[in-house]
Amino acid sequence: AAPLSLIAGPCQMESRDHAFDMAGALKEICDRLGIGLVYKSSFDKANRTSLGGRRGIGLEGALPVFADIRSEFGLPVLTDVHTEEQCVVVGEVCDILQIPAFLCRQTDLLIAAAKTGRVVNIKKGQFLAPWDMKHVLAKVTGSGNANVLLTERGASFGYNTLVSDMRSLPIMAETGAPVIFDATHSVQQPGGQGGSSGGDRRFVETLARAAVAVGVAGLFVETHQDPDNAPSDGPNMVPLDRMEALLETLMAFDAVAKRNAVD
Amino acid sequence: AAPLSLIAGPCQMESRDHAFDMAGALKEICDRLGIGLVYKSSFDKANRTSLGGRRGIGLEGALPVFADIRSEFGLPVLTDVHTEEQCVVVGEVCDILQIPAFLCRQTDLLIAAAKTGRVVNIKKGQFLAPWDMKHVLAKVTGSGNANVLLTERGASFGYNTLVSDMRSLPIMAETGAPVIFDATHSVQQPGGQGGSSGGDRRFVETLARAAVAVGVAGLFVETHQDPDNAPSDGPNMVPLDRMEALLETLMAFDAVAKRNAVD
Amino acid sequence: AAPLSLIAGPCQMESRDHAFDMAGALKEICDRLGIGLVYKSSFDKANRTSLGGRRGIGLEGALPVFADIRSEFGLPVLTDVHTEEQCVVVGEVCDILQIPAFLCRQTDLLIAAAKTGRVVNIKKGQFLAPWDMKHVLAKVTGSGNANVLLTERGASFGYNTLVSDMRSLPIMAETGAPVIFDATHSVQQPGGQGGSSGGDRRFVETLARAAVAVGVAGLFVETHQDPDNAPSDGPNMVPLDRMEALLETLMAFDAVAKRNAVD
Amino acid sequence: AAPLSLIAGPCQMESRDHAFDMAGALKEICDRLGIGLVYKSSFDKANRTSLGGRRGIGLEGALPVFADIRSEFGLPVLTDVHTEEQCVVVGEVCDILQIPAFLCRQTDLLIAAAKTGRVVNIKKGQFLAPWDMKHVLAKVTGSGNANVLLTERGASFGYNTLVSDMRSLPIMAETGAPVIFDATHSVQQPGGQGGSSGGDRRFVETLARAAVAVGVAGLFVETHQDPDNAPSDGPNMVPLDRMEALLETLMAFDAVAKRNAVD
Repeated sequence: AAPLSLIAGPCQMESRDHAFDMAGALKEICDRLGIGLVYKSSFDKANRTSLGGRRGIGLEGALPVFADIRSEFGLPVLTDVHTEEQCVVVGEVCDILQIPAFLCRQTDLLIAAAKTGRVVNIKKGQFLAPWDMKHVLAKVTGSGNANVLLTERGASFGYNTLVSDMRSLPIMAETGAPVIFDATHSVQQPGGQGGSSGGDRRFVETLARAAVAVGVAGLFVETHQDPDNAPSDGPNMVPLDRMEALLETLMAFDAVAKRNAVD
Repeated sequence: AAPLSLIAGPCQMESRDHAFDMAGALKEICDRLGIGLVYKSSFDKANRTSLGGRRGIGLEGALPVFADIRSEFGLPVLTDVHTEEQCVVVGEVCDILQIPAFLCRQTDLLIAAAKTGRVVNIKKGQFLAPWDMKHVLAKVTGSGNANVLLTERGASFGYNTLVSDMRSLPIMAETGAPVIFDATHSVQQPGGQGGSSGGDRRFVETLARAAVAVGVAGLFVETHQDPDNAPSDGPNMVPLDRMEALLETLMAFDAVAKRNAVD
Repeated sequence: AAPLSLIAGPCQMESRDHAFDMAGALKEICDRLGIGLVYKSSFDKANRTSLGGRRGIGLEGALPVFADIRSEFGLPVLTDVHTEEQCVVVGEVCDILQIPAFLCRQTDLLIAAAKTGRVVNIKKGQFLAPWDMKHVLAKVTGSGNANVLLTERGASFGYNTLVSDMRSLPIMAETGAPVIFDATHSVQQPGGQGGSSGGDRRFVETLARAAVAVGVAGLFVETHQDPDNAPSDGPNMVPLDRMEALLETLMAFDAVAKRNAVD
Repeated sequence: AAPLSLIAGPCQMESRDHAFDMAGALKEICDRLGIGLVYKSSFDKANRTSLGGRRGIGLEGALPVFADIRSEFGLPVLTDVHTEEQCVVVGEVCDILQIPAFLCRQTDLLIAAAKTGRVVNIKKGQFLAPWDMKHVLAKVTGSGNANVLLTERGASFGYNTLVSDMRSLPIMAETGAPVIFDATHSVQQPGGQGGSSGGDRRFVETLARAAVAVGVAGLFVETHQDPDNAPSDGPNMVPLDRMEALLETLMAFDAVAKRNAVD
């Protein structure tokens, strides 16, 4: 199997300058390590815990930046979509449309994403068994689009806690779709800080190592030069200056994993 | 506290005739038992497990039927909404707009529902702790609409299973919003039948009795004259000819509960 | 079905005087309300969270007190057993031997309890599905003792939390064994206070009402005249001076439940 | 950190010949791969799902075999203990006394195991949070025995299912005790086959790879030359003829893990 790819970037697109800085820094790291990089950012955090949470610069602001990152750095870009209308517009610019976990059962959204012809990355709902993702996948492939990624990002485990069941990776891989492990949101504590979601960045490496050793096509990691002051998901994001060391270790595990596929 | 209200109807609106038959039969039962009735149906099942699941007669077909049920039977009507656009249109006809559990964190949908000025019934996500519903509620009240109902419909418990935590009823009631118990979807086995969701109708009465004894403002029960041949949620729906006996028992528990509020 | 019975008492036997005070007070309440009472106390808390937790007055201290409560008040008595040796000795005095939830799969303990000929009350493990209790039950009945009670006391739900699945009551009742709901330990937060287990007494009534409405043969409630200073399980115990009002409400629910058995 | 050690053997001691065959075969494999081996077997399966389950050859039968495996192969041996009495006797022969997960909160058993002076391997209860194991550990160290191993073997996740939370490994390691991952029982489906527990051997490698990449002191794997005909835990045991390839892969992950400890 091919080496690990990486989907990375800050949780939110904060500004053109910030996006360019992040994309440039990540590209340098990934070039040094020989990792295929997809640049990720959200233009709108549509499901903040509370009304006052900062939501991002919006679709109109973000699309030209995504377009310029593509042309400037030669990087494919990914963003998440929440409505059928967004699919059409985002599909004109971005290489990968991501379906948020809460929305993974919304048939019309899946079909609209499929119709763009772009790659569709579906996050598994926190409420869904891994073997049920084949039905979700079939909504996209049944709409004529075979380019689908499936992402594990944790399952509900009591209240305010997620657990990452590593068995879900081979189970979802049985569909034939490339499987991604989202190490950022898997350590989220949903609603765990009162008016916002908490998390524990300490376990990003723990879970990423586990997933890479099991064997995944790609890893999803959010990063920020100053996570504690980021507008969202700060508790889960990896500081940018720790990404290279983290990825270097993960690539070493990936090499072992890809030489020794579980049959 | 006031006696129990009932939100009831078939899962899907199947046809004008079927809707009138169901609404008429339910109204008769509720009139006999002195229960306030809200007629419920979905015009679109937007999150079926698989693409092939029947989705309902659509918004254009359903709205005139809801309007006529209101005027013919004098019943308030409830339906669920999935997009901001639907909120506007549904809000012109229906008394209560329901936010599906998977969508309870979608800020724009909540705001759009709030702006209609109609009552908004928010189903608690299967992935959400009851104490986190106050943030969801605040998205609607913070948009100028104080008429909100909160509905318990089960929490994720391992794979393909929900559990009803009866503590969530008093916890959500602390917000001041009336709390509804959805006895139909609480017995759902998500994805538990392969290409569709399963369930176990046998436990509708079990859970409804429990919730009513704890104390709720209302109960949500889907019903059908022939559940096993219904286009969706058949395994969970109560046969219409068993509704009266079920409600009679529940009203007896409700009387005890309302005389003995937990302080 | 017969009206509700009650298994009640303080978590630990603290002293002869304390036991007599509690037994006398509970008997008076139950006589007034027409409730069959079993007096419960532990002589040893064998599984305290930490070494320093107070463990009780021991078997030798407790047995004569149990014997005297039986003769003085005419009450059947229940205590929990942890080893085969304890079964023999306890079986000479107590009417009901209780198998702790953590030990419900220990075959030799179940057989030893069965051999005493006394009633055996088996608490369902926090790690066990209700349909699997039939195998546990069969270990006792298969050893020649048909007098078995099955008790629900909550299921593991993430970390440090239990959830009470009310469906477990009818599922366990299908075995034919009388089903008890333990409203005290169901609100426990295992290990949730660092070096001891926490809980939330507020929900004892919530869960007890739910269970009684569903329909149970008996209720298990620990009580203390001063729970906040009790040596164990204080956070979950009902203050003695609130027991009568609580039981009065529960008996009203029980009357409705027993008139309307779920078929 | 030191390379991975292995605790391995068949679930039950079936006979002297079988034990010698297994110990010899495992020693050869581990010698070739440079892995420290502890030979494991149970003399009594004290918590079979049903009365009819085969329980092993008993303490008297097993101890001389353990003694001879120690002297013949120079291997340390491990077995599980269920009562205080067993601790004393087993402690005279075996190097490691293992506390079963269901019994990890039984104070007297922990103390009795501690008093033998042998290494005590405590399996984390399926009902316990990883951060609560420090209290369990303290019962042994507080009784004067600092030689404790802590083993992860899955947490309750709904009914009839366990989930392995890889975060528990670094959390338990914070106590300073060596942490073992039990890849055999973590794939168990408790009670999931009606009268016996099921499992899915397919995921042993999945979870073992994950745990080793996260970083553990040792791995626990049950194995059998013919698992499908083994008297217990067959669905979870690794066929003996696949052990060497499995261990070779795991040692490659271990080398990467130990060079790159998470800080």
